[in-house]
Amino acid sequence: MRLVRFEQDGSVRWGVLEGDSVRPVRTFQHEGPLELEARAIPLEALRLRAPVDPPRNIFCMGLNYLAHVEESPARQVPKAPVWFTKATTSLVGPDEDVVVDRELTSQLDWEVELAVVLGRGGRRIPASRALEYVFGYTVLNDLSARDLQFARGGQWFYGKSLDGLCPAGPVLVTADEIPDPQDLELWLRVNGRVRQHGFTRDMIFSVAEAIEDLSRGITLLPGDVIATGTPAGMGFGQDPPVFLEHGDVVEAEVSRIGVLRNRIRFEG
Amino acid sequence: MRLVRFEQDGSVRWGVLEGDSVRPVRTFQHEGPLELEARAIPLEALRLRAPVDPPRNIFCMGLNYLAHVEESPARQVPKAPVWFTKATTSLVGPDEDVVVDRELTSQLDWEVELAVVLGRGGRRIPASRALEYVFGYTVLNDLSARDLQFARGGQWFYGKSLDGLCPAGPVLVTADEIPDPQDLELWLRVNGRVRQHGFTRDMIFSVAEAIEDLSRGITLLPGDVIATGTPAGMGFGQDPPVFLEHGDVVEAEVSRIGVLRNRIRFEG
Repeated sequence: MRLVRFEQDGSVRWGVLEGDSVRPVRTFQHEGPLELEARAIPLEALRLRAPVDPPRNIFCMGLNYLAHVEESPARQVPKAPVWFTKATTSLVGPDEDVVVDRELTSQLDWEVELAVVLGRGGRRIPASRALEYVFGYTVLNDLSARDLQFARGGQWFYGKSLDGLCPAGPVLVTADEIPDPQDLELWLRVNGRVRQHGFTRDMIFSVAEAIEDLSRGITLLPGDVIATGTPAGMGFGQDPPVFLEHGDVVEAEVSRIGVLRNRIRFEG
Repeated sequence: MRLVRFEQDGSVRWGVLEGDSVRPVRTFQHEGPLELEARAIPLEALRLRAPVDPPRNIFCMGLNYLAHVEESPARQVPKAPVWFTKATTSLVGPDEDVVVDRELTSQLDWEVELAVVLGRGGRRIPASRALEYVFGYTVLNDLSARDLQFARGGQWFYGKSLDGLCPAGPVLVTADEIPDPQDLELWLRVNGRVRQHGFTRDMIFSVAEAIEDLSRGITLLPGDVIATGTPAGMGFGQDPPVFLEHGDVVEAEVSRIGVLRNRIRFEG
């Protein structure tokens, strides 16, 4: 099942994508069947939102692909997952513009990631059963203001949580359609040029291991979103570094899910 | 007004503390008057919860008192606020035990802080008007598993977000009763021994400046909680370092608010 979220009459609703049309969900729930309305709305008539509704900030793993560790200032391969969060207010949907104050950053960078949405919460979830807790998967672009990320006492939260810095979508694909999240391919393109290309099999910590580690100490909630890290190719790691400019179109893609396309707009 | 949150019939409700009794609030809202039930419940009959209900992870400022910067591994005085977050699931109420897995950490440390609860959300809030956005203040103990805090690629989130690591309370004092949040005194005691003692006038970034900085890039929401940093005296900074042990009673206190008392319990 491929789920979308869309605006209607000022509220945000879930829907199921069927071909080129969307059937609205009566009451969304992470567990149990979804009851659908009879009517179908043409997809093109809808303004899509990010297909996640996290009950709190988004959990993110840093430095989770070896080739990305090597292009990072840290350069140290982590022995355990590196966790930080992105503010929920940084979420934007597919086809929405990313609007950033020019005065806040001059080093806006991309990071394509596979994002996991939990269907069930829990604590001390063993890796061997962790995928049973997954509701579905979507694409997330962990946009990062590198100047802020590395300036604020080394804590990444602020530079990754500015409004607009978390595009997600276009759809949330339920877990039954992706039996192995470690068998996916990722790409990121800027104005059509491929900047990142990787495979989820190259994650240092798998989706299941990430859930095990996080839930060892933290009770997870249904709807929690976990971004699983980015492969090599960030702009900051180029020589010389490359950053996003006004008008750039960024496409983050994960196989079996789709293409998340956003235009960058600097203001101020 | 002094607000508490308490459990009743399986749900959590807000109440107003009047002497030794609590009048339940019919429908809690951050703006506008609160309608109270006629009946009053004796405080001692209630099990209090943390008097905050954040819509997402708790914003925290690190390294915000000079004397604490000097006892920290970083030792660099920040030029701008250092932001990280604590998971909402780490919240515990006054008089609740802090239950921690022995296998997760052997370096549990204390940090008394003034916490701010926003009544109004917004973006680009100037410092000169920031206090108008504050609903109230409470005491927060930013308990920190130092071994995890400094191990996870230098990102503090995980080591500060384990279940139980965010006691808050005992009450939420509305802003009208605290006209100047920079005129408060803080203490932290372990088993009666004073371990931290400081004054909010010594913050590097004031409450108003913190709100201005955070909202420059991030849209704030009503109910958002901002912890404003801790003064000197953490266990990690002692020579040799001192950490919390099973059975320790930790009291975090802020003048005009009250004493937040929690017992530490290691399990496993």
